Amino acid sequence: MVATDRTKLRRAKEKGHHDRASLLDVLRAGFLCHLGVVVDGQPMVVPTVYGVSDDEIYFHGSVASRSLTQDTQVCVTVTHVDGLIIARSVFEHSVRYRSAMIYGVPRVVTDPEEKVEKLRLLTEHVTPGQWDYARQPVRKELAATTLLALSLDEASAKISNGWPDDEDEDLELDVWAGVLPMTQQWGKPLPAPDLREGIPFPGHLNR
Amino acid sequence: MVATDRTKLRRAKEKGHHDRASLLDVLRAGFLCHLGVVVDGQPMVVPTVYGVSDDEIYFHGSVASRSLTQDTQVCVTVTHVDGLIIARSVFEHSVRYRSAMIYGVPRVVTDPEEKVEKLRLLTEHVTPGQWDYARQPVRKELAATTLLALSLDEASAKISNGWPDDEDEDLELDVWAGVLPMTQQWGKPLPAPDLREGIPFPGHLNR
Repeated sequence: MVATDRTKLRRAKEKGHHDRASLLDVLRAGFLCHLGVVVDGQPMVVPTVYGVSDDEIYFHGSVASRSLTQDTQVCVTVTHVDGLIIARSVFEHSVRYRSAMIYGVPRVVTDPEEKVEKLRLLTEHVTPGQWDYARQPVRKELAATTLLALSLDEASAKISNGWPDDEDEDLELDVWAGVLPMTQQWGKPLPAPDLREGIPFPGHLNR
Repeated sequence: MVATDRTKLRRAKEKGHHDRASLLDVLRAGFLCHLGVVVDGQPMVVPTVYGVSDDEIYFHGSVASRSLTQDTQVCVTVTHVDGLIIARSVFEHSVRYRSAMIYGVPRVVTDPEEKVEKLRLLTEHVTPGQWDYARQPVRKELAATTLLALSLDEASAKISNGWPDDEDEDLELDVWAGVLPMTQQWGKPLPAPDLREGIPFPGHLNR
């Protein structure tokens, strides 16, 4: 993983991480990314699910079908909000977050065996256990799926997990300061309206 | 709000909404957006907080300082993940979400009075009650803040809140199907390490 002009962090340098482990920590903590592409010279940002291996991130090409043809530069950004940093001054309010940005030209995964393998990886990243439990894709479904792989070589992670950084004179104010933590929680599973009776909720979906 | 070539939804048309009320519902339900810009012909996607009025979205220009100079086209995307749609076939797995995409050229808010007003709006969107409670920005801080406003005129919202849509023959499988709901939750407030004793947690920060 290299720090290029793009991945060098211009602001808040102390928050930047260029090691692969920090990057993978951020990527493995979620399943939704924002995919940026340029269409007719204009930016377009689309949310989509992803999977990740030790050296690539995978996503469906169809989300940006009209733009992701070939040799298309993308920027994939993953952000987890961990809370709000509440300062004594409005100016110092900020966010606790972990984020990752990956730049590059994704390749289309065309080899049939690799495509199945990487689709399995993506499925297992988002819903561990489902690949072997649910019905796997048939040839027609595989053909209808465009799978893209993007190297993690040009990437960076940013982690903000600090406290309010107020001016010294503001510490004297009678104003509360701290962090409002935020987490994502899984709720009680909702069976589909057309689920047949007697089919148990599978344990591997318990989060 | 108009449906332009960009905001016309190419896929999943049934999920698209072009009315202002749907858009505002999505924007008011969160405070983090992903801002896409084009830098040297390449996409860059940066997470940042935003505020919203009835006809504009507001964010800090500094997040993309080297790219957001003037007349810069942006795409602002806001996504809330509401759950995973678990189908009987891997192919039909999907996500419950609400998202909004806004395109346009943001204007820099330069009028001092308007700048304060819109910063108040942004602050109150992210942390309601804090503008009047915390210390408000002084002249130097206002000068250090670039505030951008983007019209909601070219925008669309997408809402996916359905159920798995399996092939008829898959309904016979002994495979569970439904939705794993996901929500964001606020945790117990964490006082700053340097918070003076005797300063109560303000009720307006209770979520």
